[in-house]
Amino acid sequence: MSLLYRGKAKELYETSDPQVLRVRFLDGATAFDGRKRAEMPGKGSLSNLISCRLFAWLNARGVRTHFLRQVSDREMEVWRLRMLPVEVVVRNRVAGSLQRRLGLEHGRRLEPPVVELYLKDDARGDPWVNAHHLRVLGIAGPQEVAQLEQEALRVNALLGSFLAERGMVLVDVKFEFGWDGAGRLTLGDELSPDVCRIWDERSGRVLDKDRFRHDLGDLLEGYREVWRRIA
Amino acid sequence: MSLLYRGKAKELYETSDPQVLRVRFLDGATAFDGRKRAEMPGKGSLSNLISCRLFAWLNARGVRTHFLRQVSDREMEVWRLRMLPVEVVVRNRVAGSLQRRLGLEHGRRLEPPVVELYLKDDARGDPWVNAHHLRVLGIAGPQEVAQLEQEALRVNALLGSFLAERGMVLVDVKFEFGWDGAGRLTLGDELSPDVCRIWDERSGRVLDKDRFRHDLGDLLEGYREVWRRIA
Repeated sequence: MSLLYRGKAKELYETSDPQVLRVRFLDGATAFDGRKRAEMPGKGSLSNLISCRLFAWLNARGVRTHFLRQVSDREMEVWRLRMLPVEVVVRNRVAGSLQRRLGLEHGRRLEPPVVELYLKDDARGDPWVNAHHLRVLGIAGPQEVAQLEQEALRVNALLGSFLAERGMVLVDVKFEFGWDGAGRLTLGDELSPDVCRIWDERSGRVLDKDRFRHDLGDLLEGYREVWRRIA
Repeated sequence: MSLLYRGKAKELYETSDPQVLRVRFLDGATAFDGRKRAEMPGKGSLSNLISCRLFAWLNARGVRTHFLRQVSDREMEVWRLRMLPVEVVVRNRVAGSLQRRLGLEHGRRLEPPVVELYLKDDARGDPWVNAHHLRVLGIAGPQEVAQLEQEALRVNALLGSFLAERGMVLVDVKFEFGWDGAGRLTLGDELSPDVCRIWDERSGRVLDKDRFRHDLGDLLEGYREVWRRIA
């Protein structure tokens, strides 16, 4: 298998099938644009298990995702997509940058949810964009952006109720989408506590990467708890 | 007259008519959130003259603006509005923060124009917002935001052609809107080279506040040139 991409938390490999890629989850944890880093043995496997579970559940509910199958403890196979270099953030509660930027009250419910778009561009610090910018950048037209937001909201609602039934709050989540071989909008990337915020519904206990960002306790304890409840 | 507000470039006074306010343009120039400052005798008057001319011209073309009449060299009277704490930026060419943030080519034409929204909140550095944020902040609903953007695009097109007929390019412009006594969307604030970028069409010479921001020559020489061409 030839390596296509190596990131902080994942590697991406080509397989013998040109339409299929292999994702390998690593044990590295990073935050604040990589300024905080750690190795956490077991993290890759937990992220893979959680991602595979959530993708498979979404697939079964008619959502088009890139997920094909779990291959091993830390690997999954996915359809190759033409990725949109866009992060679609959906927020159901106020936390993180939304709280800091606009001074809204931490934990406040956002109903309907807030959607934000960011350009995936490390060198520029993933700047915020709107539909106008994505048009000018040649990334997506207004209708494609509307489709992107709509699909993000739909997946967010599904994941939110899945987690709620298991005593967890989906605070916010970052999605990445691409076009599949037939040009259909497809959910890609991963679905782990690396890319969303999850709180215990009763206690408000943080179960996601904020544990690492803000030193709220052992990161993997949170991931293990999520996995225990959804497995 | 009682002072309602004192800013860096303007003062706002109540008048004997509760529906009418008086705007007094000052000679202060500031940039970079007030980190660069200067006094420029004559600036207030030029900003007032240019604003009055452009507002009156828009009024005559059926645009609802707050402009009532020029009162003196540096004063105009306007309708009192319930202002939206939002800056609506319309960009016809790439310059300034758009160039820096997204790495687009300086001067590139944007057709249709790009619209950006910022929350007027000095303490938070006027953060970017979208329609979702404005809803959550209780400032404007989705339809009001759409109306805001549409009206900004319409005024931008009118001002753009007015300046083009006079050999100038409207590169970008920041609008502020409010609701008048009857609840109608109305263009407020000022229309001077303090709140837009204007280039000479042939030479590309900068005629706006960028002269001050980036030390491109005497600021008022640019404002005088704009005034000379539109008077």
